[in-house]
Amino acid sequence: MRATIMHKAHDVTIESVADAAIIEPTDALIRVTRACICGSDLWPYNGGPNVEGQRMGHEAIGVVEDVGSDVQRIRRGQVVIMPFVDSDGTCLFCEEGLPAACVHRGFFGNGVLDGAQAEAMRIPLADGTLYPISVGEEDALMPSLLTLSDVMGTGHHAAVTARVRRGGTVAVVGDGAVGLCGVLAAKRLGAEQIIIMGRHAQRIALAREFGATDVVSDRGEEGIVRVKDLTNGFGVQSVLECVGTEQAMDTAMGVVRPGGAVGRVGVPHYETIKGAQQMFYDNVIVGGGPAPTRAYIPELLPDVMEGRIDPGRVFDRTVALDGVPDGYRAMNDREALKVLIRP
Amino acid sequence: MRATIMHKAHDVTIESVADAAIIEPTDALIRVTRACICGSDLWPYNGGPNVEGQRMGHEAIGVVEDVGSDVQRIRRGQVVIMPFVDSDGTCLFCEEGLPAACVHRGFFGNGVLDGAQAEAMRIPLADGTLYPISVGEEDALMPSLLTLSDVMGTGHHAAVTARVRRGGTVAVVGDGAVGLCGVLAAKRLGAEQIIIMGRHAQRIALAREFGATDVVSDRGEEGIVRVKDLTNGFGVQSVLECVGTEQAMDTAMGVVRPGGAVGRVGVPHYETIKGAQQMFYDNVIVGGGPAPTRAYIPELLPDVMEGRIDPGRVFDRTVALDGVPDGYRAMNDREALKVLIRP
Repeated sequence: MRATIMHKAHDVTIESVADAAIIEPTDALIRVTRACICGSDLWPYNGGPNVEGQRMGHEAIGVVEDVGSDVQRIRRGQVVIMPFVDSDGTCLFCEEGLPAACVHRGFFGNGVLDGAQAEAMRIPLADGTLYPISVGEEDALMPSLLTLSDVMGTGHHAAVTARVRRGGTVAVVGDGAVGLCGVLAAKRLGAEQIIIMGRHAQRIALAREFGATDVVSDRGEEGIVRVKDLTNGFGVQSVLECVGTEQAMDTAMGVVRPGGAVGRVGVPHYETIKGAQQMFYDNVIVGGGPAPTRAYIPELLPDVMEGRIDPGRVFDRTVALDGVPDGYRAMNDREALKVLIRP
Repeated sequence: MRATIMHKAHDVTIESVADAAIIEPTDALIRVTRACICGSDLWPYNGGPNVEGQRMGHEAIGVVEDVGSDVQRIRRGQVVIMPFVDSDGTCLFCEEGLPAACVHRGFFGNGVLDGAQAEAMRIPLADGTLYPISVGEEDALMPSLLTLSDVMGTGHHAAVTARVRRGGTVAVVGDGAVGLCGVLAAKRLGAEQIIIMGRHAQRIALAREFGATDVVSDRGEEGIVRVKDLTNGFGVQSVLECVGTEQAMDTAMGVVRPGGAVGRVGVPHYETIKGAQQMFYDNVIVGGGPAPTRAYIPELLPDVMEGRIDPGRVFDRTVALDGVPDGYRAMNDREALKVLIRP
């Protein structure tokens, strides 16, 4: 079969690899029908550590081709959403709604588990990991359904951990696909003021359609001042940090108001959280992390199925597997927002 | 009148100062009937910056002697609890239950407002700040009522921001008076396992009476390993950080389990929160800060009045004003846990 392999910075290729196959009795084998490229895939694309030979991709919808002998709930022929981590569905973390911290957690497309930018995948712990959906594999809702694998669930996690409340004030740091889904999630949870911090015209336009009420294009201190100007000088109750750089986190901590919360979902590329004293005196809460997207599907799926949210609009380009390397380039050049893959 | 003045490290004295008086029409004047020494008073006692001449003390119960012309709710003769910050009771933060972030917030005994270790005090924003209680000024419950000014409210805030839940697992870092009140608060909120981290025999004994189920006396990495041993290797859901040193925060971050929360109430003597990546991958939440004790009184007061909690047991010594300097010494030498003052 064919799969996407990262070699080194700016060197990602489609190659023939051994066919995906059942290994453990709790595995399933899926044929990937939709996958995509994530903003976090651009970190290794720009020279992250130890990527040579890494299978890429961690967001997928697929059709179950086979299951191991111990798989109980997942059956051949089902169309399934694959969250970006696997999880057993039974450990204490899974039971508490945090499958992203499952004691058997593994990240897809991260050097250990199979990557989703491929024709097929082995899915460990299939019963706990996969979420069957009642649609045909070519359903028109596929782009939005695919976002429940990661990007919409991650935007929702940012909103939940930033404690977005009905009538509340929100800032979203970052206008990438996760940030845009964060806007959608904040709107869905009833926020009244949603400030998108970004500067890319098309993305800002989509953010407005998703519910953003204000736009701040300045960065650094100027951006912080602008957000405060928009919020009676106080800052916002909820900040969704959807980038992961130190500057983005500094901005997040600068625009949160006393008693507010910062929900981090951008993979952090910094070692410490600065301003521990200001954070203390302002009673600011910092939370977030890898989203438990598997646990959020039951809440978000009906809104997708019934058309109340359409996060699939973050995809602005579709490629076959051969088009994946150029898809990386286009996302890296900010020419494409998010690239959908039909293997 | 007489008041407690800090000069420099280990030099605190009782001196004659100008009588407290009404200045603003929203002020009240109280005669202090109970005050105490706080663990945080030991930071300036050990050489904090710019303390020369600072009035000390921020916890008090008093009797209202006079009120300004704009005071509506507070009346002469009332016995009142004075939270450690003043607050207007009307700003957006007060209305959201966070008077510790009031836009007119000031800290008592912090170089600007009067100190409580004195015969009398001017209380700004009396209507928003003071909480009248229906007891005589010599009621036997006075020690426990006094803790609602700070230390019990602060322990409760640690528990709330650490998201203590019924049946949950808790670690309390620090066996000072706040830590012990944190144990009491965690027990009150229904925690099932409460691990006190400390090594002072008498304090540990009181922690057990307050509800601690386990004791870890090791510090640093050994302490972290011990807590993990007591929690199936995972760590606890809620950590109450009641010290404020960098080592205490490192311990807190080391014992919290994935999906757990750290509630900081120890005044932080560090600039950054380390381990931002581990915190992210574990979806750990960090919150806390100065407790909104004024807002917690309605919830905690009935439990004190009806004897369900007895946080006043943290006081193990009582002095008059003349005894305050030796009270600082005794607390600093860990000879006394917390010193009650009858001015």
